[in-house]
Parts: sequence; C-alpha cells; structure tokens
Amino acid sequence: MDTKMSMDNLLRAICEKQNPTVAGLDPKLDYVPQYIKDKAFNKYGETLKGAAKAILEFNKCLIDALHEVVPAIKPQAAYYEMYGTAGMKTLYKTQEYARSRGMYVITDGKRNDIGTTMEAYAAAHLGKVKVGNEEYEPFMGDALTVNGYLGSDGINPLIKVCKENDKGIFVLVKTSNPSSGELQDLLIDGVPVYERMGNMCEKWGEELPGKYGYSGVGAVVGATYPEQIAELRKKLPHTFFLIPGYGAQGATAKDIAAAFDANGLGGIVNSSRGIMTAYKKEGCDERDFAGAAFREALRMRDEIMGFVGKIQLP
Amino acid sequence: MDTKMSMDNLLRAICEKQNPTVAGLDPKLDYVPQYIKDKAFNKYGETLKGAAKAILEFNKCLIDALHEVVPAIKPQAAYYEMYGTAGMKTLYKTQEYARSRGMYVITDGKRNDIGTTMEAYAAAHLGKVKVGNEEYEPFMGDALTVNGYLGSDGINPLIKVCKENDKGIFVLVKTSNPSSGELQDLLIDGVPVYERMGNMCEKWGEELPGKYGYSGVGAVVGATYPEQIAELRKKLPHTFFLIPGYGAQGATAKDIAAAFDANGLGGIVNSSRGIMTAYKKEGCDERDFAGAAFREALRMRDEIMGFVGKIQLP
Repeated sequence: MDTKMSMDNLLRAICEKQNPTVAGLDPKLDYVPQYIKDKAFNKYGETLKGAAKAILEFNKCLIDALHEVVPAIKPQAAYYEMYGTAGMKTLYKTQEYARSRGMYVITDGKRNDIGTTMEAYAAAHLGKVKVGNEEYEPFMGDALTVNGYLGSDGINPLIKVCKENDKGIFVLVKTSNPSSGELQDLLIDGVPVYERMGNMCEKWGEELPGKYGYSGVGAVVGATYPEQIAELRKKLPHTFFLIPGYGAQGATAKDIAAAFDANGLGGIVNSSRGIMTAYKKEGCDERDFAGAAFREALRMRDEIMGFVGKIQLP
Repeated sequence: MDTKMSMDNLLRAICEKQNPTVAGLDPKLDYVPQYIKDKAFNKYGETLKGAAKAILEFNKCLIDALHEVVPAIKPQAAYYEMYGTAGMKTLYKTQEYARSRGMYVITDGKRNDIGTTMEAYAAAHLGKVKVGNEEYEPFMGDALTVNGYLGSDGINPLIKVCKENDKGIFVLVKTSNPSSGELQDLLIDGVPVYERMGNMCEKWGEELPGKYGYSGVGAVVGATYPEQIAELRKKLPHTFFLIPGYGAQGATAKDIAAAFDANGLGGIVNSSRGIMTAYKKEGCDERDFAGAAFREALRMRDEIMGFVGKIQLP
C-alpha cells in the first residue's frame, strides 16, 4: 500500500485482501467481554476513563484479529463521544492502532457545517492543525462520513482538505434506516432527494479523481434498499459506496450485489454488531471474542464474495 | 431560573435579561489575544494542549464578561474537535463554566445518526452515561443542534433523551449559507425541502410541549434569508428559532425582526465572530478583549431589541 491513504488506497486494499468489507467499531460497553471491563474498572474505577480504556483494549484485540483479512475499520464517533474526553482519546488511539496495522480508517462522524467551521471539522478528522510553528493530526481518519444537507458550502472545505492531505469523504445519500425516505425519497421534479444528493457527489468528485474510476467523494447507500443501490450504481459511475445495514439491520449479500461493477469494485460493506458480538452469537468463551469476530469476518467475506466474484483493479 | 434547563428555561432567561441573543464561542486560535497564547504556550508548549488551554482561558473571560447580560452561549464543536482530545476537554470545561455562571448552553454539533447511535450522541451531549453503577454527564449541553436528513429515526432517540433530562434540540431547517438552497429550497409538490423539515419540527415538538407555546424542538433558520424567516414564523408557531448569520455573515437586525411574535419571543440570534473579535474591530488593547466583547454584546442587544420591543412571557 502507498504511504498516502486516499480512496485509491482503499480500493487497492480491498483488492489485495479480496474483501470488500469494513469492520464497524461501534463499541457499546455491553459488547465488551466482562473480563476486559473488570480489568479496566479495577484499575480506573467505574468511570468514563475506565469505560474508555476497556473499549480501547477491546478494539485493539479486534484489530489484531481482523487486520490481515479486513481492509478497513469504521469507528462510529458517537460511541466514543459518549465517554467524554476519555472516549475521544480512545477514538484517537483506536485510529492510530488500526493505521499501524495497515488498515484504512473511515471515521463515521456524519459531520456537517459550512465555511470555516467545516474547515475546522476537516482539519480535525482528515487534516492537520497548526499551533504556532508546530503541526498536529488531531484525529487519524483516512476518510470521514459527512452530511450534505447544507450544500456545496459544507462540502467544498472538505474537498480542499482532502486534496491537500490525500483523504476521502462519504456523503450520506440513501441511509439504511426505515424512515430514511421521509425526506430522502421525496420527489423533486420527478427525481428523489437521494438521487439529487448522489448527483452532487458525482459533481463534487470531479475535484478528487481516482486512478481506478472512483473519486474521493463516496456515498453512503444503505444495504436495506437494494433497488436504490442498483439504480444509483448505474447513475453514479464514479462514486464509491459505503454500505451500512448488512446483517443486524436485515440486509443480505444478495441485496448488495448490485453495488458492484464488472471488476467487483464499487462499494464496501459494513458490519458492526455482527462482528463485535460474534462471540455472543457463537456462544463461545468470551475470551475468544476476537477469534469469533475473525470467523464472522471470514463468513461475511465469503458470503459477499460469492456474489461479487473476483475483484480486480481496472 | 429553575434548576432544570429546558427550552422554557431559555425563554425565561431571554425574558429576564431582555436579550434574545446568544454568544457563539467558535474560538479560532487567531481570535485569542497574544498574551493569553504566550502564557499557555510557555506552560504547555506549542501543542494541541497549549492551544486548548489558551482557548479555555479566552472563553472563561468572555463568559465572565457576558453572563449578566447575555442568556446563552453556543460553543461550536468543530473548533474544539480540531484540537483533539485536549480540545474536547476545553469544550467540557467551557460548558461547565458557563453553566456555573447561569448561562444556557447550546452545543452546536449538528449531530445526526439513527437508532442506538443517535442515542449515543444524545447521551453524550444531553444525557447521562452509565458505567457500572455510576452515572456521568460526558458533555454539558442544555440543547444540541442536529441535522434531520435521516428522518424520524434520527430524531426520536433525541426526543427520548430530551424528555428524560429536560433538554432541547435545534434542527437545521434553513441554514444561513449561500448554497443552502441547493437542496433546502428545492420544491416537493410545491413545498420547499426546508419547509417540510420545519413541519417535521412542529410534529416532533408535540412530544416536548413548552409552557410558553414553544416546544423543545427548535429550528435553525438563517438570518440571511429574511423572507423565509417571516414565512416560517407564521407556519411554525410552536418552533423556536436559533438564528445564525447576523453580523459577519451580513444580516442585520431588521432582517430578523419577523422571527419574533407579539410577545417578542420566537428566536435567539447568534453572534460569534462579532463578539469574539470585537477588540480587533475596536482597536483597543488586546487585554481589554472581554470589555470589547461586552460592549459589542450590548450594542447587538440594543439593535435587535429596537426591532423586537419588550419581551414578555405569555
């Protein structure tokens, strides 16, 4: 993998591992095995810091288990913010550790704002921040999920930071939840809102062209809406999809098949709960949670690759 | 003021102070006087922590200067996230300090997600988090700005947490930026997207009724679109407005007048840059930055009250 981590790097990693999936790290404390929590609480008490330390150990073990077969992680910012400052430190340490293990990091923050404020978010998650004469990387994402409701004023600052730092974004287009249609499916001159948002992704992506046909501006398209995936794949040929909703939310590999092009590229499928809580479903010893996560990751890979076929870079 | 901090409390605070404005704390390091930065950098180096400590001192001085005349602060999360974990600690400490000075805290995070993930954001910013047998408040907002693109699945978890903890939200409806119309102004059966979002606010607000006619679900409506403000004020009688765009973005007090009802209630107007950098505009000694902020806050209050008239609770 190149040292830089653009969307092209994600595609290369997917191809190398023949695996278009990403492990979502949305670590509820309930998911963390008791022995890890006990250890952290003994040392730090039943505190936000204790919770954050337990989650960090859980995440590191999962990354150790998964990094050879899964190309990327997707930490969900909300589950770190809920443990306050200590939780944000665990987010950083998780990103840093995944990167040290060669994984691509998609920070799921759904951030959105305008102008200089969006520049601040971009600097926080994808860029660098200058303090006096020194430069720092506040968080360590390779890509960030964002919400485009505010229009180009909210996306252009991101594009600028992506260009400077070779990073990517995924814009919410058609989300996986049941009520996503309340706004996203409404028709404007016969075209649904989500398709208009998708068209904007194609346009914004012209500023960040990729080597393999997909730009640095991806789209979040829920696995739970197979017809829309198929339709958007045709209409958005340069937009790479981040696909939530597989597994726990009810979508199957078959539902997602249409996201992929003739080269087996086109999207990356997320599983969070399925992987993190595999040890509960398997019923194995909780100390084998990382092994169970690995086995579930292989099962998911094989199931999805059954529909995708071989992945190759064009 | 009651001990609980619902949207009603915000209205009471506005009435008590006869001032429908909020001080936006979007502290770029450039805004912080050199003597404060020097002090922090001498102690902590030119580091993220040094920057975060400088910003905290800047914020505390502003809060000291403003709290007797301005009812609320609105810290913008992006400007804290950009200094990493240290920045998030400054966000917390700023919120805590403002609350100790009796100010209402609107966390401007524009958070959005679905289901349990949105619950995690709600717990982080408006609720409490349980670790073992202990409960903690990760951040200290009284209200949070949110993005409703994902529909009810993204808002209902917030409503639940708002009910349990007596908090409020402000949903992005018509934002103040030039490109807000790219999506928000598009017509669906003759009704623009922003109005549909506003109608959803009215509906969601039924779950959080207020004593003074306005619910716990507010709307962000930009001062830069005076016609839309007037129209939305009529169509959304139970939705309180958070109004950005005054001053630096070009809107005047006259543009905002239509946001207010016969009692002088209906919205709260934000100024960030105008207040934080008043000392630069005034050209006074940088050590008088808090005095300059106070003078600008009075000027803004008087200008807006000139159009609002007396504020009274119904």
